Amino acid sequence: MTSRFRHVALIGKYQASGVRAQVDAPDSVTSEIATFLESQGCEVIVEESANAAPGSGRYRALTLDQIGEQCDLGLVVGGDGTMLGVGRQLARHGLPLIGINRGRLGFITDIPLDSYQATLIPMLAGEFEEDHRSLMHAQVIRNEEVVFTAYAMNDVVLNRGATSGMVELSVSVGRHFVANQRADGLIIATATGSTAYALSAGGPLLHPAIPGWVLVPIAPHTLSNRPILLPDADEVTIELVAGRDASANFDMQSLASLQHGDRIVVRRSDYRVRFLHPKGWSYFDTLRKKLHWNEGGS
Amino acid sequence: MTSRFRHVALIGKYQASGVRAQVDAPDSVTSEIATFLESQGCEVIVEESANAAPGSGRYRALTLDQIGEQCDLGLVVGGDGTMLGVGRQLARHGLPLIGINRGRLGFITDIPLDSYQATLIPMLAGEFEEDHRSLMHAQVIRNEEVVFTAYAMNDVVLNRGATSGMVELSVSVGRHFVANQRADGLIIATATGSTAYALSAGGPLLHPAIPGWVLVPIAPHTLSNRPILLPDADEVTIELVAGRDASANFDMQSLASLQHGDRIVVRRSDYRVRFLHPKGWSYFDTLRKKLHWNEGGS
Amino acid sequence: MTSRFRHVALIGKYQASGVRAQVDAPDSVTSEIATFLESQGCEVIVEESANAAPGSGRYRALTLDQIGEQCDLGLVVGGDGTMLGVGRQLARHGLPLIGINRGRLGFITDIPLDSYQATLIPMLAGEFEEDHRSLMHAQVIRNEEVVFTAYAMNDVVLNRGATSGMVELSVSVGRHFVANQRADGLIIATATGSTAYALSAGGPLLHPAIPGWVLVPIAPHTLSNRPILLPDADEVTIELVAGRDASANFDMQSLASLQHGDRIVVRRSDYRVRFLHPKGWSYFDTLRKKLHWNEGGS
Amino acid sequence: MTSRFRHVALIGKYQASGVRAQVDAPDSVTSEIATFLESQGCEVIVEESANAAPGSGRYRALTLDQIGEQCDLGLVVGGDGTMLGVGRQLARHGLPLIGINRGRLGFITDIPLDSYQATLIPMLAGEFEEDHRSLMHAQVIRNEEVVFTAYAMNDVVLNRGATSGMVELSVSVGRHFVANQRADGLIIATATGSTAYALSAGGPLLHPAIPGWVLVPIAPHTLSNRPILLPDADEVTIELVAGRDASANFDMQSLASLQHGDRIVVRRSDYRVRFLHPKGWSYFDTLRKKLHWNEGGS
Repeated sequence: MTSRFRHVALIGKYQASGVRAQVDAPDSVTSEIATFLESQGCEVIVEESANAAPGSGRYRALTLDQIGEQCDLGLVVGGDGTMLGVGRQLARHGLPLIGINRGRLGFITDIPLDSYQATLIPMLAGEFEEDHRSLMHAQVIRNEEVVFTAYAMNDVVLNRGATSGMVELSVSVGRHFVANQRADGLIIATATGSTAYALSAGGPLLHPAIPGWVLVPIAPHTLSNRPILLPDADEVTIELVAGRDASANFDMQSLASLQHGDRIVVRRSDYRVRFLHPKGWSYFDTLRKKLHWNEGGS
Repeated sequence: MTSRFRHVALIGKYQASGVRAQVDAPDSVTSEIATFLESQGCEVIVEESANAAPGSGRYRALTLDQIGEQCDLGLVVGGDGTMLGVGRQLARHGLPLIGINRGRLGFITDIPLDSYQATLIPMLAGEFEEDHRSLMHAQVIRNEEVVFTAYAMNDVVLNRGATSGMVELSVSVGRHFVANQRADGLIIATATGSTAYALSAGGPLLHPAIPGWVLVPIAPHTLSNRPILLPDADEVTIELVAGRDASANFDMQSLASLQHGDRIVVRRSDYRVRFLHPKGWSYFDTLRKKLHWNEGGS
Repeated sequence: MTSRFRHVALIGKYQASGVRAQVDAPDSVTSEIATFLESQGCEVIVEESANAAPGSGRYRALTLDQIGEQCDLGLVVGGDGTMLGVGRQLARHGLPLIGINRGRLGFITDIPLDSYQATLIPMLAGEFEEDHRSLMHAQVIRNEEVVFTAYAMNDVVLNRGATSGMVELSVSVGRHFVANQRADGLIIATATGSTAYALSAGGPLLHPAIPGWVLVPIAPHTLSNRPILLPDADEVTIELVAGRDASANFDMQSLASLQHGDRIVVRRSDYRVRFLHPKGWSYFDTLRKKLHWNEGGS
Repeated sequence: MTSRFRHVALIGKYQASGVRAQVDAPDSVTSEIATFLESQGCEVIVEESANAAPGSGRYRALTLDQIGEQCDLGLVVGGDGTMLGVGRQLARHGLPLIGINRGRLGFITDIPLDSYQATLIPMLAGEFEEDHRSLMHAQVIRNEEVVFTAYAMNDVVLNRGATSGMVELSVSVGRHFVANQRADGLIIATATGSTAYALSAGGPLLHPAIPGWVLVPIAPHTLSNRPILLPDADEVTIELVAGRDASANFDMQSLASLQHGDRIVVRRSDYRVRFLHPKGWSYFDTLRKKLHWNEGGS
């Protein structure tokens, strides 16, 4: 059987340091996966790297942007964090992504390394489930100018300074004022992010088909400031009213320091990220496994 | 200025006993409102009652169904409970509803009795905000037969018996198994219901524009059984696996006793309920007021 | 090595039906344990049973009360529920109890059946940790008369009727009024009960050395009605102010139907229950294991 | 009637900047209170200040320590924060304190300025309720040396850095390991602190007579990491295992930067703080008022 996906990019683990593992000087694992892909009739492309080892170059190397333009599929080897990072960067190209996990399975990267071949063969042949995830486009606006822009697949988080008291935030949705909130911070999470930090802070789980964000206050001063689900068709605006050393982060990656009066505007990106899963995949199976539901036991 | 709504039904308080107050033998309040409506060029219709007092009959009386068919607007005098009851019954007619509250303002009935005239004049003239609420259609299925049907605007609640231990429920969405849950019960709430019982049980707030339900377990055995938002495009099925004397209720009104193996199937009704609010109304203003946000104070 | 405990009662599993397994007609497991105890120099006593099989009678049989008076140690074979039941009944005798668990380990019964000998040998020789648990003494008072009395090691729970709305409860501590609460119910839990129903309802964990109860409202109407820790030196009084078909239960066992005006008075019993654990036992080890802390995992 | 308290210190508002208002150059309010105290037969002492205005000096001025040694009562004019600050500093002297609140009443400072005379007259005559609060003594230990010491009446809080991920903390009580926790941080709160930050983070309320601390994780990674009540007879030790830029604060006042391996050791101080309240005062009355219980409400 031949792969439906002609040009397949093999994308390595995104390192904590921001340096992706070299797939053009591939380790034994990625080398083996590349060989397998060729056996399925795919042309293998790797991500171009400034510091490629001499002698590497067995596979065509492209930048991530070129991969987005020229490839039919991205095969990401790593954990959820890698997958989110690649997803954010490739979203505008609509490239479908499959995640192979080298360690403990994640919410998104659900194909274990030790059985990837049996799983990928039917997927490459066209047997898969599509799982679309929305993407946040966030801006920091200061004195009516955009001073910072970022995308987020999980969450936008506003935080008090580590050594200061609460922040006070003024929240609006579209043209409507929602509330002034005093808290340690505020999380605006997608469905994808609802199983991450937002869950720890007391937020609900969101099925990915829900076209909304959840706002989860962190340690709110007012006990009735409960998590609230908002339609993602409207912009959410958070203004920093009070609080020292506040900051905003986006998928825990990029960071902006905030001043009083700064507004963070979050809207749904026109792009969505396309993940492919094995046929029969269900979001709920992943939830059950990751959240240890139905395991007997108290 | 003349009312855009020609035939306006005046609908009284829905009593706890299930008997609506007699508007065809109107008390002084409803009588005064009727006179006001006539002054705005409306024909006033009242709800027909079996035990109408002799000598009443100043206004044309119709059944609720006839009101739904023949009127242009329903003016409900009562609290949120009355409004939900009338909304459930008139949903299939698409009749818009306005709520006048005799007591403390509710989440839906937001026009105070003591200033209703000033508020209604522009609304009757066409100045209003529309607020559409989804409706649940629920069935109890036993041995593949539908043994009970009900509509709900707030919630469908499955409960353990008062003197028995937990129920065990098997939850599915569409064709997908979600989880087996052991708990005191389970609430399936609409956005409208998210400010009612579901909130007490730990659920999030849902903006009415969110096309989803929230499942909120009541005192779940497994701590990671958190509230979960599901798209309302899919049917939710709850099967009673274990537990004595379990029951299901629908907007805390109609009630069904459950047997093991019974399935409660909840789907979105094709009908939506149309509430009208004064121009400038915002859902968030109501939340702030009802949940005592931003009142200073701890 | 000889046991420090001369007269050891072997007490069987407390059945759901209220009938304890016959240890005077012992199954192979209890028979084996009895033989082991004799090998350690103990005299084995079994619980007397009305329907003892003819021909049984190898061991002296006593009622539970006689066991409490005449024995030095109770060896309970069963789960936490059995242990709590035996603990409640023997508390006034101060008999120390050891729990052997036939199935999944519990919070209290922490000795697995398959390695009981190695664990018991040093314990019988005097190497153990004592773990004292407080006991609630609860009364239902109607028209100034005590109409019901029960003991509880886990919790006293007030519940609404299954098919009715909230109850309204007036809570006092000593001579002080605490609050009127509207909720599905209210749990008054000991430290022992803090890992049971109270935990599902949102309560905190209590170390057994804390001389207090925790009051945990179930789905409270007022969001600031949070769990509250009260000293157990003071009586807690709960009066049923409103709500139909309300009831109270005590360790989920005995049950009282409640009328408006009924007061449930909970005070600390003068007796405490004495559990023995293997040397080195720590309450926190049990918590970690039962609550799946530190297992990696999301 | 004459005051039972002969030497009464009038202590001003503790400023955010750490500078207390000058009572030796008293504003009209404190001047009026001082005159009232003299009329009750008290000698008025004020807190000594380096930058006392020339010409002030109508009252004897002492340092806080001298006040603790030489006075019979401290009258604190300010909010809860002032009261906590003075309480921490005077605890070892056992000086009883009364709080007069200039603004919104607090949990501790419960005498409104506009009716202080009527309230104080019987209190000075000996009619009052004593309310003892425990005090935490906290040390930061690095390489087996104490590098920081502080007292806290509300809480000791360990925090992640503002722009970094979770901290990992190893918690022990006495000689027992409790758990490794990954979270935004951890709050160790007294009963007094249970109505402050710990409440926002999801902790229970603690009656002041409970001899325990509550550990409340902030946004914990593991959902079963629930608040836990620990006896204050044992030391609580928190070791920073992982996490960048972590810090500890003590009543949100003094601050310590933390390194990996640092241990925060919290034990109950031998001193307790003595607050005096008007006769008939009840802790629960304050809770009801501050938490808006029983107000009709939503």
